[in-house]
Amino acid sequence: MKDTYVQAETLKRFIIEVLLKVSVREDVAEYVAEGLMQTSLRGVDSHGIRLLPHYLEAVKKGRINPNPNYKFKKTSPSTGTFDADHTFGHAAGMEAAKKAVQLAKKAGTGHIAVYNSSHFGAAAYYALEIAKHDMIGMSFTNTDALVKSFGGKRSFLGNNPICFAAPCEGEEPFCLDMATSILTFNKIRQLADEGQEAPTGVGANSEGIETTNPEDITMLLPISGYKGYGLSMMIEILCSMLTGMPYGPHIPKMFEAPMSEKRYLGHFISAMRLDCFQNKESFKKRLSRMMHDLRNEPPLDKNISVQVAGDPEKKFARERVKKGIPLKRRTLEIFLNIGREYNVRLLERFSMKGK
Amino acid sequence: MKDTYVQAETLKRFIIEVLLKVSVREDVAEYVAEGLMQTSLRGVDSHGIRLLPHYLEAVKKGRINPNPNYKFKKTSPSTGTFDADHTFGHAAGMEAAKKAVQLAKKAGTGHIAVYNSSHFGAAAYYALEIAKHDMIGMSFTNTDALVKSFGGKRSFLGNNPICFAAPCEGEEPFCLDMATSILTFNKIRQLADEGQEAPTGVGANSEGIETTNPEDITMLLPISGYKGYGLSMMIEILCSMLTGMPYGPHIPKMFEAPMSEKRYLGHFISAMRLDCFQNKESFKKRLSRMMHDLRNEPPLDKNISVQVAGDPEKKFARERVKKGIPLKRRTLEIFLNIGREYNVRLLERFSMKGK
Repeated sequence: MKDTYVQAETLKRFIIEVLLKVSVREDVAEYVAEGLMQTSLRGVDSHGIRLLPHYLEAVKKGRINPNPNYKFKKTSPSTGTFDADHTFGHAAGMEAAKKAVQLAKKAGTGHIAVYNSSHFGAAAYYALEIAKHDMIGMSFTNTDALVKSFGGKRSFLGNNPICFAAPCEGEEPFCLDMATSILTFNKIRQLADEGQEAPTGVGANSEGIETTNPEDITMLLPISGYKGYGLSMMIEILCSMLTGMPYGPHIPKMFEAPMSEKRYLGHFISAMRLDCFQNKESFKKRLSRMMHDLRNEPPLDKNISVQVAGDPEKKFARERVKKGIPLKRRTLEIFLNIGREYNVRLLERFSMKGK
Repeated sequence: MKDTYVQAETLKRFIIEVLLKVSVREDVAEYVAEGLMQTSLRGVDSHGIRLLPHYLEAVKKGRINPNPNYKFKKTSPSTGTFDADHTFGHAAGMEAAKKAVQLAKKAGTGHIAVYNSSHFGAAAYYALEIAKHDMIGMSFTNTDALVKSFGGKRSFLGNNPICFAAPCEGEEPFCLDMATSILTFNKIRQLADEGQEAPTGVGANSEGIETTNPEDITMLLPISGYKGYGLSMMIEILCSMLTGMPYGPHIPKMFEAPMSEKRYLGHFISAMRLDCFQNKESFKKRLSRMMHDLRNEPPLDKNISVQVAGDPEKKFARERVKKGIPLKRRTLEIFLNIGREYNVRLLERFSMKGK
């Protein structure tokens, strides 16, 4: 079955209208739709528009607050705390990114600890927003316990991601956005669906024993053992200890917890002005040069060029800006059903194109 | 042959006196000796006192400036740049850590880009200094090209380390200090000396092909492929692009470059006050609690408890504070020779103890 391609703006408008129908405030809906659309444009389908039904459920059942009362407190020239009042992580993260940029304009850098938040999707959305202002952007979130502790039998920490974006010349910013597990559960589930083995060393069963049977994998393994587990803990310190939010096993699970239960997630967002360290034009020029140099390194396989972090996402975005975002048949059906339920038309908005 | 144990303070005094004899300024010598001693106390022998002969050579041949003229420039309330004038990285890093703390006291956070520096040893020295002030400390450095690029045939970036330290209650700070390669070259050389195979997936030969023969390994592999390679690039952006220093292949090599050649390394040092985000006592209590919880997770091997980052170093430090730092016969000989050359007595300072 061929995928159906829908223009990104069409999907964004659809998502906004549906969110408005479940009483999500307009500014919040805008952030959520933009975040999901941008993430799907960049090819990160696991964290993109396919999550819409999950979020709708979360609003309807009470997990996510559609009409938050934010509380921002500036705690020093370069720091602040942000109470997201249990709204969408997308709105919380983007509000915090903007506060971080504001602080950095005066103080050189800005750092915001976000609390009472929920799933914020792809971390790149926030770091890339900051990079638009000629600043280095960093974004972190904690997640529920998914990753087997190094040397332990159980999961404790999540696959807490780290994201770092830096502006460069002549192309979209450098952007590293990585989870601290080797693979994600979405990938494991995909392998199970396809009847394939998982690679060695990526997952463990409920006894904590490594297995390549994707059906048996209940825990992810951290990148490079104790190193990934240590990075995940660093991120937990930023997102739980600095925000006052629960940690690891105390965080309600995204899918397993009742949808009425709030997540109590924390994020940490940083912005650092380039021009506090270097002439910003020469910084951007040099970074582009380094990326160019790396891409021109002799490749191991002569048919596959060396890439830098973010290159696959840039390639997806170039294609999908033109062609639209591909919806699998199942996703298209779900979206059409949502459209019928909320009386928001999707079908007339896009031109159906086979893959 | 048994190791000889020497008290840490004895070694530190010895190192200071030797450095003074080659005209290293007193404040610089103090930082270097303290850094080397603390690193060896924490069991990180690769980056500790054993590097003394290398540094002496670097001072004598002109690579390292023993009498630097620092230039610090505050560029915003929370940022600054620091010209280390090619002195020891230990002195540069520690001066920068203190500047970061000073900035953070007023502005909430402090971030220093250090340029014209040299090898700074273990990154933990600087982050731990910051953590003493109830702040989160982070320290980064770039290194010369050591790590095979993901998908490439050659090395381009170094195994650039990331260090993160956070204060906690009742014990030394949480401290993650990790290189972005799986193993270090020191470890590979040790395996070669012992006639052992290297693990799979840690090194490649000069053609970029993975090998387990430690004699053939000329390049290290990044942790978890593109993820470690991406992290290394993030650190290169902080330490080269933000500092104006050369990157990757343009950085003179630590051992292979002439000892008269300056290294032009960059570091990046950050401090963030805990109390700008949380009550600092409750932060420290909660962090200790999380570490305690993790250590009490059911272990995979019932005889080996789960550890958190920094636990092995804390164990070494507890032992070595009492017993002294072990010198292998070869290192002891080198130290005794240095003592004779510079007329600084080491032997009378310590009580010889067999292991």
